[in-house]
Amino acid sequence: MLNQKNNDNFLGGPQNFEESDIVIFGAPFDSTTSYRPGTRFGPKSMRSEFFGIETYSPYQDLDLADFTIYDAGDLDLCFGDCSYSLKQIEDMASEILAEGKLPFLLGGEHLVTLGNVRASAARYPDLHILHLDAHADLRDDYLGMQLSHACVIRRCHEILGDGRIFQFGIRSGDKSEFEFAKRHTYMNKFNLEGLENTLEGLRGKPVYLTIDLDILDPSVFPGTGTPEPGGLSFHMLLEGIMKITESMNIVACDLNELSPTYDSSGISTMTACKLLREILLSLSAKQL
Amino acid sequence: MLNQKNNDNFLGGPQNFEESDIVIFGAPFDSTTSYRPGTRFGPKSMRSEFFGIETYSPYQDLDLADFTIYDAGDLDLCFGDCSYSLKQIEDMASEILAEGKLPFLLGGEHLVTLGNVRASAARYPDLHILHLDAHADLRDDYLGMQLSHACVIRRCHEILGDGRIFQFGIRSGDKSEFEFAKRHTYMNKFNLEGLENTLEGLRGKPVYLTIDLDILDPSVFPGTGTPEPGGLSFHMLLEGIMKITESMNIVACDLNELSPTYDSSGISTMTACKLLREILLSLSAKQL
Amino acid sequence: MLNQKNNDNFLGGPQNFEESDIVIFGAPFDSTTSYRPGTRFGPKSMRSEFFGIETYSPYQDLDLADFTIYDAGDLDLCFGDCSYSLKQIEDMASEILAEGKLPFLLGGEHLVTLGNVRASAARYPDLHILHLDAHADLRDDYLGMQLSHACVIRRCHEILGDGRIFQFGIRSGDKSEFEFAKRHTYMNKFNLEGLENTLEGLRGKPVYLTIDLDILDPSVFPGTGTPEPGGLSFHMLLEGIMKITESMNIVACDLNELSPTYDSSGISTMTACKLLREILLSLSAKQL
Amino acid sequence: MLNQKNNDNFLGGPQNFEESDIVIFGAPFDSTTSYRPGTRFGPKSMRSEFFGIETYSPYQDLDLADFTIYDAGDLDLCFGDCSYSLKQIEDMASEILAEGKLPFLLGGEHLVTLGNVRASAARYPDLHILHLDAHADLRDDYLGMQLSHACVIRRCHEILGDGRIFQFGIRSGDKSEFEFAKRHTYMNKFNLEGLENTLEGLRGKPVYLTIDLDILDPSVFPGTGTPEPGGLSFHMLLEGIMKITESMNIVACDLNELSPTYDSSGISTMTACKLLREILLSLSAKQL
Amino acid sequence: MLNQKNNDNFLGGPQNFEESDIVIFGAPFDSTTSYRPGTRFGPKSMRSEFFGIETYSPYQDLDLADFTIYDAGDLDLCFGDCSYSLKQIEDMASEILAEGKLPFLLGGEHLVTLGNVRASAARYPDLHILHLDAHADLRDDYLGMQLSHACVIRRCHEILGDGRIFQFGIRSGDKSEFEFAKRHTYMNKFNLEGLENTLEGLRGKPVYLTIDLDILDPSVFPGTGTPEPGGLSFHMLLEGIMKITESMNIVACDLNELSPTYDSSGISTMTACKLLREILLSLSAKQL
Amino acid sequence: MLNQKNNDNFLGGPQNFEESDIVIFGAPFDSTTSYRPGTRFGPKSMRSEFFGIETYSPYQDLDLADFTIYDAGDLDLCFGDCSYSLKQIEDMASEILAEGKLPFLLGGEHLVTLGNVRASAARYPDLHILHLDAHADLRDDYLGMQLSHACVIRRCHEILGDGRIFQFGIRSGDKSEFEFAKRHTYMNKFNLEGLENTLEGLRGKPVYLTIDLDILDPSVFPGTGTPEPGGLSFHMLLEGIMKITESMNIVACDLNELSPTYDSSGISTMTACKLLREILLSLSAKQL
Repeated sequence: MLNQKNNDNFLGGPQNFEESDIVIFGAPFDSTTSYRPGTRFGPKSMRSEFFGIETYSPYQDLDLADFTIYDAGDLDLCFGDCSYSLKQIEDMASEILAEGKLPFLLGGEHLVTLGNVRASAARYPDLHILHLDAHADLRDDYLGMQLSHACVIRRCHEILGDGRIFQFGIRSGDKSEFEFAKRHTYMNKFNLEGLENTLEGLRGKPVYLTIDLDILDPSVFPGTGTPEPGGLSFHMLLEGIMKITESMNIVACDLNELSPTYDSSGISTMTACKLLREILLSLSAKQL
Repeated sequence: MLNQKNNDNFLGGPQNFEESDIVIFGAPFDSTTSYRPGTRFGPKSMRSEFFGIETYSPYQDLDLADFTIYDAGDLDLCFGDCSYSLKQIEDMASEILAEGKLPFLLGGEHLVTLGNVRASAARYPDLHILHLDAHADLRDDYLGMQLSHACVIRRCHEILGDGRIFQFGIRSGDKSEFEFAKRHTYMNKFNLEGLENTLEGLRGKPVYLTIDLDILDPSVFPGTGTPEPGGLSFHMLLEGIMKITESMNIVACDLNELSPTYDSSGISTMTACKLLREILLSLSAKQL
Repeated sequence: MLNQKNNDNFLGGPQNFEESDIVIFGAPFDSTTSYRPGTRFGPKSMRSEFFGIETYSPYQDLDLADFTIYDAGDLDLCFGDCSYSLKQIEDMASEILAEGKLPFLLGGEHLVTLGNVRASAARYPDLHILHLDAHADLRDDYLGMQLSHACVIRRCHEILGDGRIFQFGIRSGDKSEFEFAKRHTYMNKFNLEGLENTLEGLRGKPVYLTIDLDILDPSVFPGTGTPEPGGLSFHMLLEGIMKITESMNIVACDLNELSPTYDSSGISTMTACKLLREILLSLSAKQL
Repeated sequence: MLNQKNNDNFLGGPQNFEESDIVIFGAPFDSTTSYRPGTRFGPKSMRSEFFGIETYSPYQDLDLADFTIYDAGDLDLCFGDCSYSLKQIEDMASEILAEGKLPFLLGGEHLVTLGNVRASAARYPDLHILHLDAHADLRDDYLGMQLSHACVIRRCHEILGDGRIFQFGIRSGDKSEFEFAKRHTYMNKFNLEGLENTLEGLRGKPVYLTIDLDILDPSVFPGTGTPEPGGLSFHMLLEGIMKITESMNIVACDLNELSPTYDSSGISTMTACKLLREILLSLSAKQL
Repeated sequence: MLNQKNNDNFLGGPQNFEESDIVIFGAPFDSTTSYRPGTRFGPKSMRSEFFGIETYSPYQDLDLADFTIYDAGDLDLCFGDCSYSLKQIEDMASEILAEGKLPFLLGGEHLVTLGNVRASAARYPDLHILHLDAHADLRDDYLGMQLSHACVIRRCHEILGDGRIFQFGIRSGDKSEFEFAKRHTYMNKFNLEGLENTLEGLRGKPVYLTIDLDILDPSVFPGTGTPEPGGLSFHMLLEGIMKITESMNIVACDLNELSPTYDSSGISTMTACKLLREILLSLSAKQL
Repeated sequence: MLNQKNNDNFLGGPQNFEESDIVIFGAPFDSTTSYRPGTRFGPKSMRSEFFGIETYSPYQDLDLADFTIYDAGDLDLCFGDCSYSLKQIEDMASEILAEGKLPFLLGGEHLVTLGNVRASAARYPDLHILHLDAHADLRDDYLGMQLSHACVIRRCHEILGDGRIFQFGIRSGDKSEFEFAKRHTYMNKFNLEGLENTLEGLRGKPVYLTIDLDILDPSVFPGTGTPEPGGLSFHMLLEGIMKITESMNIVACDLNELSPTYDSSGISTMTACKLLREILLSLSAKQL
């Protein structure tokens, strides 16, 4: 009469923290979302629907059943207090990193990335960021606020400095953001062209991978706070991510901006789940 | 770094089977639903949203935090095989009853009741049924099938015989069902009038309480497979249920027919959750 | 290998025009709807979902299976040409009336009533109208247009004159409409009070019954073009209609303003279907 | 070629601040919402749909066209910074009060009330609060945060002290809130009983009226962040509000917690608009 | 006063069984659907919306008005009894085949294919299957059940044996299914590459074409039970199907897994209807 | 205390008619829509959500903040009276053209184009039309009506004559429309191939650009009255439009057929807004 079934973690069965190289945790936070809130339901929706996809990947011929991954659940974040929430995320990530494991953060809005990056940069001073997104997220402030989803990569830049951030797929921002990018980051607009060159240059570096799912076309991923027409197909994104995970030394990463309420068909959640499966498999296979 | 949070049981925290007088389990089954399927998502939706209501009831001045209730999770039922699914439900209920505990079943379609009733009648030969529903569920067969949600009370009657089933709120059925009721059950059409008299007569008997949530008006509970206009308000149903739980010897019970897909506002799930809270509190308080 | 099943009429089986006292026809028209269009889908949605309710009524202990009613299907109306559409409705109704049968019109927006009333008044010069609605529909013109859903009862008044129109449930309109009502119609605001007195006075007269389903509270009937909070419950409306059909000489009638697109739960269509069943049964039983 | 039409204020036409006794302003803020965010879209949705109801009220026989009310639009609030947002609300309200006008605030989540109450209490030291709500909102903190929608009346109590706050309709909260209410506020659970006595005692006092629309039953008002089954009907709430506005000296007020995303039928927005119309008419008529 | 209009068959007008080479029938069955049920509404939704597309195809310069196709309507299948439902489908298909006509089955879930294949294999012992799908459907059992949508092609393999089944577009399954495919079927993963070679080899053979519409990308076809990201565009699928219908000897076929409830925009139903039109035109033109 | 914020025009700030070269106005009209109405809400939805995209375009490196564009708001059109509505549109466009400005019309259904074309052809007798659409819109009448969305380009042809209309992307129509096109217009089916040749030939001519947004694939743009599978991607359409606006002498244009009700995700409105931004920027930059 055990209640294993409603142990709603991604892998369904019993978990083993010690043997896991990757630790998933959710940050259900969307307090600074400026357009349409709801990414707080992202991690919960992914856990709830993950059973709807297979554990086996025909793309990689790998099966999650063959790996040990720990799902630490969601943090209890306080809506309306960004600084404290970021601190909670940073503490969790630091703890995971201290155990020599990879913190895999599920947002929530993109601001949550800052907590994970702070912890990662503390442990890996030479950290570089690969940023896949529709939006530049390079504002200095948004409506007077510096801790905002629209400023998150700018805040990361303050930690890492020039030449450490590589942005792909960017198709939206204000003029100042694109000008900032010209001077301080590498930015490839609209798609993933140039990704291979970038990966060549980053080989061997510790890399933080942050994926804002709105890089996908809204037809593929309508369930997000700020849909931006003209994005990537699922195949383009999957191919790009596989190139990254296979060749880079990923030390921490995140997947964010799923807002399931805006997609009554549920395809956005399935897309997030399938990408999660592929990333987990690729990262896990390398550690064998 | 424990993952207590995604232990998505109704009470959130750690569980203790031994100390619990009530054991909740879900039967996510809707294979015989004839109109609109989807009640399979009922228990999952209730677990997922239960955190959205308080644990404290201002109606009863009681708090779930003060009681120990065990949530055994959902059964793994096979879609398309009714007999086997009912057997799984019966086995689970029998096991709970054998421990001297009350099996609280969450449907699923109404057919699941049959498994719980079979187990309960085996343990309590003098079992009586209180049936709150919009539909009579008294057909002998439905499209040639005897194990159907439209036949469930008829099947219960075959177990218990005349004079043991008391139906309230019934406002739909075919002519033969209403004629069957005249001869074999007590039926109060449309509302809960006469409930107090019935309860008077049942005092001291072992009672199975089955609640098809479509007894509520569709305005209050649109998220169900077969909405039937002209039903009860939330207050009317809550008041009736409280009368039952306070005065009856409930030995097993169920709450069924929540189909969350049909209610994008989510109010049906909240209604099911709030009724669950009130029933759990009322039953638990009696056992103190 | 006959294709009886997709003969999507209300009664499912083969039809017999000669033996039918009532002829149903749909007018899928919403060209003058000013707020939210979509009532064109009303009749189609009702035919599609009618199988979801029983043919037997426990309210009246009558079964549609025991009566012969003819469903003539929907008219092919031209969107954007009100005069011609009204003419098509009038012609259909005249043809039905000429056969001594009752034309039962399913809207569409409320303007369609005018076609049916024109035909009925031509045959029954002493026609009176019972009008159940949230809106007065008494404007002389709406944005310069005289053939508008907001003017339909005013147009009927031009045909019938003072003292022939009795309005119930009205809770919305502009000031001029309520002033017009004081001088030219009988109007009972907000509910059905006074209905019995009115029925007393109309006994023996030929009566046209027009029901705008938005007389119901939006909680009960959200699927309508102009929802107006503060309306009737299902029970109140059903009880009022039963009083009317049982005591009045109904010569023609309509049920309109179902707009299923605005109600993803489907409860509005079920409500319209159930009211249709009850009216058909009540009218048919009288003719036995 | 003027663009008066897209001047999307509530009264449609040109505005006159000087002649207006009432000034409406919106606070599109939901950063502390703990369950389902989205009330930020409340004021916008109301402005957008207000044209869908008449300006004339058959309940009061009054017409908005006969009064001058100023709609100042929505504040530009920064998501994620509660203190600063509340300051902006307070400043706006103070400015309106300084002109001898009534600040009519449209939320947003219930926390916005605090800004308006601060300004009102500063101007009217003897301020009393009439609080209509499903939730007690009396927590000291929520997940460690004191500026939360769940704490807003507790914060108001810190300003006003015992005996100044009168709560009606409350049907949800944790145990400590109900205990706090016993000692520090007047609370009537579940409905509006006792309202007349309260009004008797408040006659002549300066009163702040705060209406959390979730006091309504979710069937009537599904479009809200935290739906709570078992609430008031539209008629019950309208009747209660009319008693208040007719007899009290309302110096400031608010209407909050409309979250239109959760109600695809749009009836929640229409309900909020109709209540707004009735309150504006009642308050305006008194000042004639 | 004929009711031709609500004769809701695909071609609208009167039908002629004798002259038709193709007979359409629906199997509204979804009892074994494991993730999200609702394909039972597929055929009904297609019939209801088919009028929304033209009868003329600019792709083929052909018009349905120039051909005679018989729509036999939907079978009355019993939910919850898979064996009997499959028998009903098989009987219907056998009857159509016996008349020398092509049975065109509309699902429902993919399991319905088995009934049509059984009848076709009985008549054409050399039957080959072309299977377009996102899922392999090659499990031996699913949760202990052998008659499941996830096993349907495996069951077909038991009838036809090795070398007779050709699968395209497959991008999901468990590991054992892909291993089974290596030994017993031809499988092309992810897309339609290699289709022309396959068609070359099948020339002249009797071919059963089964199309699970979830082969399409979820952006194009969200209304399905198990959406699988990374699928075909409409153009890719249409082009592939045209190659098949033009060159193959199709003796029976099906189109399945439309679940309209999950797509409130209705584009999935339109996509299914347009593909149906193109297939019907292509098959009909060959028989001229 | 100014209410600038709810001045819901596209550019947010104060407006200057004199300095604007482009004047936007909306025609919220859908009375002749034959399948699914609702495009009346198109302009309102675009104004309401336009703030959700940036004013800066990374595609063109231009910012709307650097240009002066006048938004005249929406016309008050009478539903159900097509001739008068078209006259209102024509008058508005004539007035704008008389000032030497470009009338940018936002539909509404496609019929509204006729009013704008009438005015434009009166001012530019040598007018040519570039027509991007899924549908040919070349019927002589639709259900007997000549002023219908399905006939709008045919009506334009009556004004302009042969050789003046160039149609792209057309993938639906009845046979007669495609035959009419062969004789009287230039039509490129399915996509934008041949656009460059056409533009070459039109260089220097006054061109009217009409964009029916259903030229996009329904996956990209589900929110439209008549979705037609197999359309353009966002990139393909944007690229085509940019070629047109950069090289052609556009004297008037329109963007129509957004029907937001059918897309609960909101991505269709965002797509329309982004295309509007790009067109406005491209046209404005040329006039510098």
